Amino acid sequence: MIEYGFSKELSLSFDEVVTQATDALKREGFAVLTSIDVQQKFKEKLNIDFPRYLILGTCNPKFAHEAILAEENIGLMLPCNILVHEKGDKTVLAVMKPTVAMKMISNPQLEKVAQTVETKLKSVFDSVQAATKG
Amino acid sequence: MIEYGFSKELSLSFDEVVTQATDALKREGFAVLTSIDVQQKFKEKLNIDFPRYLILGTCNPKFAHEAILAEENIGLMLPCNILVHEKGDKTVLAVMKPTVAMKMISNPQLEKVAQTVETKLKSVFDSVQAATKG
Repeated sequence: MIEYGFSKELSLSFDEVVTQATDALKREGFAVLTSIDVQQKFKEKLNIDFPRYLILGTCNPKFAHEAILAEENIGLMLPCNILVHEKGDKTVLAVMKPTVAMKMISNPQLEKVAQTVETKLKSVFDSVQAATKG
Repeated sequence: MIEYGFSKELSLSFDEVVTQATDALKREGFAVLTSIDVQQKFKEKLNIDFPRYLILGTCNPKFAHEAILAEENIGLMLPCNILVHEKGDKTVLAVMKPTVAMKMISNPQLEKVAQTVETKLKSVFDSVQAATKG
């Protein structure tokens, strides 16, 4: 396990994990604002063949607003990332833990928002895991 | 000052800071991969009027590749963010410190890449500051 996020190797295809995660994010009130296709970037910029590796940047506008009011430069830590990447015949899903990043910043109001967001992102993570078993 | 980044209030317009920062990033070999117009998102999603606030996600493909090889889930912490936001008649420029995020992860190889990237991002920050005085 990693310290800075929830992660799990899943027996689902890459595309299934992306779809499941995106749907679960929507249900929790998160919009996917950015999407970086790392495989494609490495091919284009470095001519390197790399497994599929996608970084989705997600935000819940209400909580993002609360966080920025609490800490004006917190945009440096936004959006929250969801990572999907191929690993052999498995797909890894990883979800950022906002509370870990927030530990570097002593701001109790921000900590509260981070905890709320983390609970919601953990639900997203759990629901994709549940889909694997279903 | 903030612990997790370099930040400074500048006497340049918002647009000037964005242009200067983007140009300096290019000179250091960084591509801007994502751009989140937070002001526009808050208007659209929450109907809230907010100062201009832009989150640019930037990556140097070579160093991103090294970082992912060293730590497969480091995509959770990528891209590196540059933040530009209005504050009264000033514009704040803030640049993420990759070494701070990496402190949470004990991986010496990753730390080395983070230090290299941080030196380059500090150059970007310094060159925009220098433009203010020029």
